[in-house]
Amino acid sequence: MTERLIVIGGDAAGMSAASQARRRRGPQELEIIAFERGDYTSYSACGIPYFVADTVEDLESLIVRQPEVFRTKQQIDVRMRTEVTEIDLDKRAVKARSIDGGKETWEPFDQLMIATGGIPIRPPLGGIDAAGILGIQTLNDGVLVRQVIEDEDPKHAVVVGGGYIGLEMADALTARGIKVVLVETGEQPMSTLDPDMGEFVTKAMRAMDIEVLTNETVTAFELSDAGHVTGAVTDRRRLPADIVVLGIGTRPNVDLARAAGIEIGPSGGIVVDQQMQTSTEGVWAGGDCAEKFHLVSRAPVAIALGTHANKEGRVAGINIGGGYATFPGVVGTAVSKVCDIEVARTGLKETEADAAGFDHLTVTVDSTTRAGYFPGASPIRTKLIVEARSGRLLGAQIVGKEDAAKRIDALAVALWNEMTVDQMLNMDLSYAPPFAPVWDPVLIAARKAWEKVEATLQDES
Amino acid sequence: MTERLIVIGGDAAGMSAASQARRRRGPQELEIIAFERGDYTSYSACGIPYFVADTVEDLESLIVRQPEVFRTKQQIDVRMRTEVTEIDLDKRAVKARSIDGGKETWEPFDQLMIATGGIPIRPPLGGIDAAGILGIQTLNDGVLVRQVIEDEDPKHAVVVGGGYIGLEMADALTARGIKVVLVETGEQPMSTLDPDMGEFVTKAMRAMDIEVLTNETVTAFELSDAGHVTGAVTDRRRLPADIVVLGIGTRPNVDLARAAGIEIGPSGGIVVDQQMQTSTEGVWAGGDCAEKFHLVSRAPVAIALGTHANKEGRVAGINIGGGYATFPGVVGTAVSKVCDIEVARTGLKETEADAAGFDHLTVTVDSTTRAGYFPGASPIRTKLIVEARSGRLLGAQIVGKEDAAKRIDALAVALWNEMTVDQMLNMDLSYAPPFAPVWDPVLIAARKAWEKVEATLQDES
Repeated sequence: MTERLIVIGGDAAGMSAASQARRRRGPQELEIIAFERGDYTSYSACGIPYFVADTVEDLESLIVRQPEVFRTKQQIDVRMRTEVTEIDLDKRAVKARSIDGGKETWEPFDQLMIATGGIPIRPPLGGIDAAGILGIQTLNDGVLVRQVIEDEDPKHAVVVGGGYIGLEMADALTARGIKVVLVETGEQPMSTLDPDMGEFVTKAMRAMDIEVLTNETVTAFELSDAGHVTGAVTDRRRLPADIVVLGIGTRPNVDLARAAGIEIGPSGGIVVDQQMQTSTEGVWAGGDCAEKFHLVSRAPVAIALGTHANKEGRVAGINIGGGYATFPGVVGTAVSKVCDIEVARTGLKETEADAAGFDHLTVTVDSTTRAGYFPGASPIRTKLIVEARSGRLLGAQIVGKEDAAKRIDALAVALWNEMTVDQMLNMDLSYAPPFAPVWDPVLIAARKAWEKVEATLQDES
Repeated sequence: MTERLIVIGGDAAGMSAASQARRRRGPQELEIIAFERGDYTSYSACGIPYFVADTVEDLESLIVRQPEVFRTKQQIDVRMRTEVTEIDLDKRAVKARSIDGGKETWEPFDQLMIATGGIPIRPPLGGIDAAGILGIQTLNDGVLVRQVIEDEDPKHAVVVGGGYIGLEMADALTARGIKVVLVETGEQPMSTLDPDMGEFVTKAMRAMDIEVLTNETVTAFELSDAGHVTGAVTDRRRLPADIVVLGIGTRPNVDLARAAGIEIGPSGGIVVDQQMQTSTEGVWAGGDCAEKFHLVSRAPVAIALGTHANKEGRVAGINIGGGYATFPGVVGTAVSKVCDIEVARTGLKETEADAAGFDHLTVTVDSTTRAGYFPGASPIRTKLIVEARSGRLLGAQIVGKEDAAKRIDALAVALWNEMTVDQMLNMDLSYAPPFAPVWDPVLIAARKAWEKVEATLQDES
């Protein structure tokens, strides 16, 4: 008997799940229908700021696989511009309708994959829904911003919030010749870093003529008679704005799941088990809508990132297809390039380590990406957050120019393996003058952290 | 009572040991004398090819710390151009003499640190000791090569052997406008890589107009009446040569230690325990002269690399100073840049995995350093060597252009922790379009390797 898999959401998680399920079960065994609200499937959402900046010129290049390819090569019935409005777990069916009109239909399923992604956080401010105020989540959003830039020729932009997308969009809008003011409520933008590391980002942005206002909050928007945004009002001033980008971040899009009675976790994401199955048998979730387990804090977290979405979708799809796979969790690795600064983090930052109950110490090391004498050696700052007595690595942050950020991966793997800095300081990391000083910055940081741990232990004994 | 530490060799291992011992024990407690044959202490030997190429112009910049600084800041009595010619373990003394003449004296020690480094392998060929035939090991060697280039204006160079130093020197000599022929006995140069990865190095060198002769062996040298090299003879042809560089590699320089009765291991290096102590109490060794434990093959190995020398010297010095530290071993990580190609390896290559008794399989993945659509995305080839049934990572190799090689570190840390590819495929490596595709090449390779392991298990069941 043929089973039916319904996928809600054509993003990386949804389409990875569909593809993996198909690899294991042919069309005679498993019918697959995927519903996608927008005009695009399986695209790189992380590429949107670069598309807006025109660094990436071709929209098509952001799309990993077109709907037509899913249909013809994999017999996955992708229904574009079609919205799922309800999930009925008793009937085991979803209600769907074309967003271009037409009647709603109930589509039954045996297996359901929820990949509804995230939605940009829109603070409850006066005028927030006005024309010209844009969140960045889907490729449709990216297309819209680009269209606004080209059609309306905005001169002034306000970016609300200095999260990754906010910073990357500030950079992108500047690249398009627009004067950008970024307003950040906190002490520094890029609040995923500790403030002492985040300030490098602020400096780099200011050097690129982006105005960065910190400890300042947007409280309302001003609109024209026609209802288009004309300015943002903060607790300190009024800023002219022809375009506003919301860069506060996203939250898991779980309204459908919640309404159906599927368990939502403390992070706001859908609760899943190791196999990416939700609280309901045969109902799976993955991507930005699904909660992730943080391997260091051991707490559930909501992290919107394409690489997690792809992995989670793959795991769900393997299990839907009758195989076995698990997704163990994340360590909070992230990397970004803002103006000419590369930033990376993994694990817990200081306040997160506090919140998780870790007594910790930190070390920060300034070094170079190559041997100091080698042409092109570039400054790199490495910070480690370490458990005070055990010396266990809890987190790491890197800020630098070229060749800096990807080095976070060695630290992410160390975290993954719960290494202590004592173990790490002798690790066999690659060395040659064009690639690192003879003591790699990571090793220096580990060594200094261990010395600090030892000193703490001696003080206490 | 004041003890005395004698250090034989002013390289990174010797001087790190001296410095660390001094940090823990002041001059009243520990007198430190360091003997160095050459004119330089504590320098970057790995920087020599770049000094020859004139990429690094300033000799001084290769020197981490001058003898005078050791003397004045650390009260370490560094005696330059002074050679130790004998170790007497019964008397606990070394015989030393100035290489500029003068009488030999016996210097007693309580602790002895042997840091005699490596010596270039000189094949027993006719004419090998002629003028113009140069090994590259010490900074003095580098100065000599540069002097030969400037004084003799050589037109043709032959590099014997395609090890790291051979390849880097071929690159350096080419940069100086000299026509270089590299002769390699094996199938490919860079024999620390598997041949399928090494061939990229050959291609890159040929593209830079370096002639690479493989499966060919230098059998003799031709000399002028004045005794200067004029050519190299191989088993196939005669090559003109105004300068010959030996690039076969080095072996541990253990003649002194062996003569004294200190145990030498199967790798040819001095046997040391976890604390870098030799078979004789109070006699320590580190750097290129000391044997290392390979954490994957679990066999002793001789690997000449500045980063190991620094770490081992640090460990020995802490222990000499009354502290406690251990050096756990190496996983065989190495990285190099040859022409415009970056190459990196860690763990075991295929033949090494065979020799260690591992049944293994391999995967090779071609990907890009950035998201495929992102400007500047550059090809990167990643190869994994994996134990056939367990899926345990045994080794990895990366070849690419910019931003490729340093990625080996994540794999080195995975090896260090004895991870399986099944565990690795979900690792939280950093992702953003300027830094990696959404599936990092390392993760793709791990995933494909795991699929291959699963297929093997299924075939066998």
